Amino acid sequence: MGVHSYVGDIMRYKIVVSYNGNGFCGWQSQPSGNSVQQAIENACCRLFCEKKVSVVGSGRTDAGVHALRQTAHFDCQKVLPLKNVVSGLNAYLPPSVRVIKAEYVNVDFDARKSAKQKTYMYLTYVGDDTPVLNDRAMHVKDNIDIDRMNEAAKLICGTRDFASFMATGSSAKTSVRTVYDLHIEREGAFVKLFITANGFLYNMVRIIAALLFKIGEGENIDVIKVLESRDRRMTAQVAPPQGLYLYDVEY
Amino acid sequence: MGVHSYVGDIMRYKIVVSYNGNGFCGWQSQPSGNSVQQAIENACCRLFCEKKVSVVGSGRTDAGVHALRQTAHFDCQKVLPLKNVVSGLNAYLPPSVRVIKAEYVNVDFDARKSAKQKTYMYLTYVGDDTPVLNDRAMHVKDNIDIDRMNEAAKLICGTRDFASFMATGSSAKTSVRTVYDLHIEREGAFVKLFITANGFLYNMVRIIAALLFKIGEGENIDVIKVLESRDRRMTAQVAPPQGLYLYDVEY
Repeated sequence: MGVHSYVGDIMRYKIVVSYNGNGFCGWQSQPSGNSVQQAIENACCRLFCEKKVSVVGSGRTDAGVHALRQTAHFDCQKVLPLKNVVSGLNAYLPPSVRVIKAEYVNVDFDARKSAKQKTYMYLTYVGDDTPVLNDRAMHVKDNIDIDRMNEAAKLICGTRDFASFMATGSSAKTSVRTVYDLHIEREGAFVKLFITANGFLYNMVRIIAALLFKIGEGENIDVIKVLESRDRRMTAQVAPPQGLYLYDVEY
Repeated sequence: MGVHSYVGDIMRYKIVVSYNGNGFCGWQSQPSGNSVQQAIENACCRLFCEKKVSVVGSGRTDAGVHALRQTAHFDCQKVLPLKNVVSGLNAYLPPSVRVIKAEYVNVDFDARKSAKQKTYMYLTYVGDDTPVLNDRAMHVKDNIDIDRMNEAAKLICGTRDFASFMATGSSAKTSVRTVYDLHIEREGAFVKLFITANGFLYNMVRIIAALLFKIGEGENIDVIKVLESRDRRMTAQVAPPQGLYLYDVEY
């Protein structure tokens, strides 16, 4: 711990968290719901013996969406050794949420505002449809054409107006985002879509995933036309949340 | 449907079933438990409008164990088209159990007695421990030595007395079984153990998996000595059920 990270009575902690989205109303606290954020805040209150701790995530994830490396920060008065923060929070968290790592950070670090880029993975599989995977991945056809998907994916990369890929009800100020990478790879029976961007509009990844998997299944869709239309009605459905994983957040 | 498969008033159906073992007391019906067998029997009664249908599986799976291709048979008076058997049973089954395939079979086909060999997969993964996988796979160390595991696995193959690999309380007449194949392979972050045999003793796969993963993590275990001892106290623990999948049954 550097002295710089302990300002006045406050220690800011950065944590990396993995969770299984099943059974949660999503990341964000809801008046009536069981949220991941609330579960972590409760664990922090118990571990640090505080009445209220606010946990700020890098962003929300919807109900049923999983995270391999979500990142969050919170402030506490007490300074605990980092390995005790990890093991202590895990002792108070349900098994479906695990803290992987904890760090001391400067108070100017903000898990949401300081995030430079995020990567999501959309997981699908071929072969027999099986309930072993039905809350963790989407089933797709065996003959899915990954080369065709990757060609279309290239057209989506770059700084663009993604209005066609934004679900209605979004409050984003601008629909321009920069997609640094978007590619599809096969690993055994799994077909994985990876997308890295400086930010994502509401449902953007699931709309892009639905579109690209339709293209992979043989549909003829002019991606440039869809992008240029800036019209949500030009895109496909929203792929189900169960296949979506927040894969990493970079600062 | 061949006429040979409809004898008197009885039609025998063979079904291939996949299920997620979480939330079930296992395959076998229990007085107080929620079993996969019971779920399928209930669905058969509703689909075929019969009071009682007995479903015979290729063998039991324990609580928490999954199946990619469990096989079973049952007799009914009604002859339904096979695609209606699949869709009809799936309509009455919970989402965690799916019928993949149905066939008409001769009444001398018996899902348990006619099985020639079965394959199980034991699924583990390296990297960060994550709740996304904790009810589907076992977490192992990154530096797991797969070559070392495969060398030990070779010593287990063949027709042998597997008494050292049989959990106490088993009622098997003989502990001799033939292991046709046992190997470990890596696929991305997953390390998979596959074992094919003419039959398995109680907990045999999970005891073998625990032993081989210990060897992969660096422990020095003399597999020949363990086998020759015919003593359960010579083997490791039982690997957790969540990583075990009934992979296929061959007839």
